Amino acid sequence: MHVVALRDQILTLEERATPLPGPFDVVVAVRAAGINAADLLQRRGLYPAPPGWPVDVPGMEFAGLVVAAGEHVHEPLLGRRVCGVVGGGAQATHCVVPAEHLLFVPDHVSWLEAGGFAEAFLTAHDALVTQGDLARDEHVLISGAAGGVGVAAVQIAHALGARVTAVTRDATHHDALRALGANETLTIDELDQLGAVDVVLELVGAAHLERAITHLAPFARVVVIGLGGGARMDLDLRVVMATRARLTGSTLRARSREEKALVTDRVAHALVPRWRTGDLHVPISRVFPLADAAAAYDYFAQGGKFGKVILAVDEAPLT
Amino acid sequence: MHVVALRDQILTLEERATPLPGPFDVVVAVRAAGINAADLLQRRGLYPAPPGWPVDVPGMEFAGLVVAAGEHVHEPLLGRRVCGVVGGGAQATHCVVPAEHLLFVPDHVSWLEAGGFAEAFLTAHDALVTQGDLARDEHVLISGAAGGVGVAAVQIAHALGARVTAVTRDATHHDALRALGANETLTIDELDQLGAVDVVLELVGAAHLERAITHLAPFARVVVIGLGGGARMDLDLRVVMATRARLTGSTLRARSREEKALVTDRVAHALVPRWRTGDLHVPISRVFPLADAAAAYDYFAQGGKFGKVILAVDEAPLT
Repeated sequence: MHVVALRDQILTLEERATPLPGPFDVVVAVRAAGINAADLLQRRGLYPAPPGWPVDVPGMEFAGLVVAAGEHVHEPLLGRRVCGVVGGGAQATHCVVPAEHLLFVPDHVSWLEAGGFAEAFLTAHDALVTQGDLARDEHVLISGAAGGVGVAAVQIAHALGARVTAVTRDATHHDALRALGANETLTIDELDQLGAVDVVLELVGAAHLERAITHLAPFARVVVIGLGGGARMDLDLRVVMATRARLTGSTLRARSREEKALVTDRVAHALVPRWRTGDLHVPISRVFPLADAAAAYDYFAQGGKFGKVILAVDEAPLT
Repeated sequence: MHVVALRDQILTLEERATPLPGPFDVVVAVRAAGINAADLLQRRGLYPAPPGWPVDVPGMEFAGLVVAAGEHVHEPLLGRRVCGVVGGGAQATHCVVPAEHLLFVPDHVSWLEAGGFAEAFLTAHDALVTQGDLARDEHVLISGAAGGVGVAAVQIAHALGARVTAVTRDATHHDALRALGANETLTIDELDQLGAVDVVLELVGAAHLERAITHLAPFARVVVIGLGGGARMDLDLRVVMATRARLTGSTLRARSREEKALVTDRVAHALVPRWRTGDLHVPISRVFPLADAAAAYDYFAQGGKFGKVILAVDEAPLT
């Protein structure tokens, strides 16, 4: 197989032995693999893969065909179109995935779109629903709404019947965010116009959150899952006490195999049916061949894009 | 009746008309009423009583005898020894209390001890158990453990089977806190010796919490209910994400009548039986007559005490 190999912050295409599945795993022939902000951190040596995953092959999400299954995988998965999240190794022609971490890709969905679904939608659903307890008719602020997780979160919150305010650095993507279901779009400098919010999904970090947190409704939930814009915030604890707010945060990548299976299962039930009917979709900014991963990362790192950056794998080298 | 009247930050004893109960209320002939840090704030004009409570008679907790009941109070409460929390007005010979906010005082418990039970134990139980989800064998840090709520929290956490670390400004009261159930006692300057904690009960504020928050175990809960030592903290959101911690806070006083009834009910079931058996008790620092409320407040404000400051009401003027 071929993989995107990361060594000394340089990405190159390398040939490796195609892996065998563990007893409860499958091997997926990858057709498309999304790039995420965490991959850029990993390229800079700042976000290593968790234990048990390839240390030098990045890639946290994939879509492709199941081509091999371990001896204890009893579900008929061979040949199925799947996508999902892995701890690493997805930016390759083949990757190993725990069988219970697979989502089935709806028939009409393209490989490219499927390759960019899992990381963003699992992260956003876990943050909004499982951590944030977002409910119908509540008001949710999505801070950093134009990024991959933000775009997923806007759609999920809209589908849940929440009132969605999407906040971005500038107004470039506001029309696109309204088309995805945002009821209101604001730049960070317009945040003083914001009403009281029940849930804040913070995807940017400290500077944004310091401004958002003065707009909490009683019993608000603040969920922090992105810190690209800074980690240290000045928090007025009187706000927490007066609103009885709850501030939490997490990453998906560090979780146990069992917990990732649970998050996958929730998305399979709550979101895949809406993906099938077209209520949810994955905007794509640009597609690069797997061999051009370095250029794709550079494009991602420029910022300002709307939608996912996808690495596409040709069918030819799969066999 | 006589009340402690607060006007222009001055406390004096005044005569007022004895109140009548509302249809769902009782009138309690007060025998003892505790002083709390919030009373000192209220004396300075910083913490007014919530709507519906006496604006110029302080006092948030009482113990006494039920001497009148409203027409819709069907439980036989007349003559019962009770204690509880009110939004204001407890530092008086009589106060009006919603019937569903009463706790029954165990027979062997003195009026003085009962007068200092409710505010501290309701607040601590709500913070540790309802907000903090403290469980048996977990490690809890109680920051500001020598105060009224802290002393209650140490006993409650110990009774729950948690491992208790009590943190104070200096070591003066460490022996007393160990006697109440603290497994470990530290001064704030010794906090680097602390292991990982599952729950932080923050009773002091920002400066203490900034030091405690670097010691969180995975899935830790931080509950902020006191800010005397400062409200603005420098929070590293990476800590929240890495530990998947949950930070919350609240006050008891601002809650609805319904919610206070729920908190009271939880304490009636979870703590009053342990108070009856002597597992929980209320250390008393000093007792003042109701007429000497100003001196009692001044004594409280000096700091350094251990246990409650109680205003005692003689039986004579009750009738």
